[in-house]
Amino acid sequence: MPFPNAIRLVEVAPRDGLQNEPEPIDTATKLELIDRLGAAGIRYIEAASFVSPKWVPQMADHRDVMAGLTRREGVTYSALTPNLKGLEAALECGVEEVAVFGAASETFSHKNINCSIAESLERFAPVLERAKDAGVRVRGYVSCVLGCPYEGEIPPAKVADVSKALYEMGCYEVSLGDTIGTGTPLKAKRMLEAVAKDIPIDKLAAHFHDTYGQALANLYAVLEEGIAVIDSSVAGLGGCPYAKGASGNVASEDVIYMLNGMGIESGIDLDKLAETGQWITLAIGRPNRSKVGVAMAAK
Amino acid sequence: MPFPNAIRLVEVAPRDGLQNEPEPIDTATKLELIDRLGAAGIRYIEAASFVSPKWVPQMADHRDVMAGLTRREGVTYSALTPNLKGLEAALECGVEEVAVFGAASETFSHKNINCSIAESLERFAPVLERAKDAGVRVRGYVSCVLGCPYEGEIPPAKVADVSKALYEMGCYEVSLGDTIGTGTPLKAKRMLEAVAKDIPIDKLAAHFHDTYGQALANLYAVLEEGIAVIDSSVAGLGGCPYAKGASGNVASEDVIYMLNGMGIESGIDLDKLAETGQWITLAIGRPNRSKVGVAMAAK
Repeated sequence: MPFPNAIRLVEVAPRDGLQNEPEPIDTATKLELIDRLGAAGIRYIEAASFVSPKWVPQMADHRDVMAGLTRREGVTYSALTPNLKGLEAALECGVEEVAVFGAASETFSHKNINCSIAESLERFAPVLERAKDAGVRVRGYVSCVLGCPYEGEIPPAKVADVSKALYEMGCYEVSLGDTIGTGTPLKAKRMLEAVAKDIPIDKLAAHFHDTYGQALANLYAVLEEGIAVIDSSVAGLGGCPYAKGASGNVASEDVIYMLNGMGIESGIDLDKLAETGQWITLAIGRPNRSKVGVAMAAK
Repeated sequence: MPFPNAIRLVEVAPRDGLQNEPEPIDTATKLELIDRLGAAGIRYIEAASFVSPKWVPQMADHRDVMAGLTRREGVTYSALTPNLKGLEAALECGVEEVAVFGAASETFSHKNINCSIAESLERFAPVLERAKDAGVRVRGYVSCVLGCPYEGEIPPAKVADVSKALYEMGCYEVSLGDTIGTGTPLKAKRMLEAVAKDIPIDKLAAHFHDTYGQALANLYAVLEEGIAVIDSSVAGLGGCPYAKGASGNVASEDVIYMLNGMGIESGIDLDKLAETGQWITLAIGRPNRSKVGVAMAAK
């Protein structure tokens, strides 16, 4: 069996999960969410996004979030920093790890960050340089790896090119995002195989969305290939902006349940995680999109 | 790749999907559901259950359903017949295929059909004999193959024993049911491997529930083993009686979406199937539990 013995879960609910919420969520709730996730045993939490509040008003309190954190030993609290300005602000808040966000689709890149893929990589170069000087690691995201809302299917070679560029530029890990959740297991495998030609598999992460209910099957397929880092969001927080009312991020509880059943270690307490999912969805008035969360709460 | 080139989908919504609905659904709605499923290209539909209306009031109109069917060429309309009385009634209605329902858990068998597993097999013997005489094929269900609400985990050998008994008794196919949806992919594989020691893989079907969100990952895992018959329910109809409010059957739309992405033929039109899911959930006032159905409707 090629399955990893253990995985690292990257919890993205405080950032990816909340960023599109239209009603402001107070900083105290975000901080409690982050603290509860840490208490459940999660060792990597994406806590904030240093983007302009003009574009993502929900993340406007990024400084307060980063400053207000009760840091737990062994837990990394990271932030998204799309440009140098965002990185400088994050560094002022004592961030120990950041992330940049690229795309495998030209059209998505233009519509999402208003520049070509090549231009986005040029923008990231000084961010990576500055982060290196500051001793801060940088994680790279690639979106649309299994489909684009504008272009449809994306060739695996295109995903491999962008991933390789980010890795060679200094990203210690590249997270492969099925942004619109249209991927299926064999396509996920083929995409990963293309990317893994240039980048060691232990430097890659799977960031899959569950819009079409495929996320766990896709994760199982890439676990077979040796993927050992998985991005997910408690309660499946984070809808799909390209299909209103549909699911977004795969739910952390569902991922951990599957891993537990497969005997793959994560160090995460599923009961505490599921309680956190119930709590945050009640706190912000959203449906709990974790089937495990709903089933555990119903019992 | 050991994946099958094509699969046969067994649509269970009219029976398994509706049987626990507390409010009576009129026969015309059931007949329209069955007809729409056939129009979407489904070739096997479990249409009714010949159980006592005392136990399953929703299926009390089984005669009217079987008699009212507009039969499409190439489509099999089957019915559940737990005993000889049910079979005789089904035969009177011209049923061409029936199913019996056993369990891999002693406690579940006692609580669900009020007898031991061995006694249930004794009860099925005359049903299989009579069906054979009438030239009617019998499908065998085994429930609790990946867990029991009372006993917890069920040893794969126990599942293999019951499955083998049903197969040797004359069931042409044995459908392996993860009744409470607690299974995970590697356990599903191990269970199937145990059963497939005695029964050819092409005589086995996977009947997985999505209560813990694992159904598609489990299906992917058993497709890797060569399973080529999948039971599912449009819109994920059929909740979980052991966790109120939680999901039940895996949604047919989500299964077909995955198979389409994997290049596995089913002969089913996903658009028509998803429309049927939207229609029936609105007609009976239930949430659409197919993520594909919700995402397609939201676009």
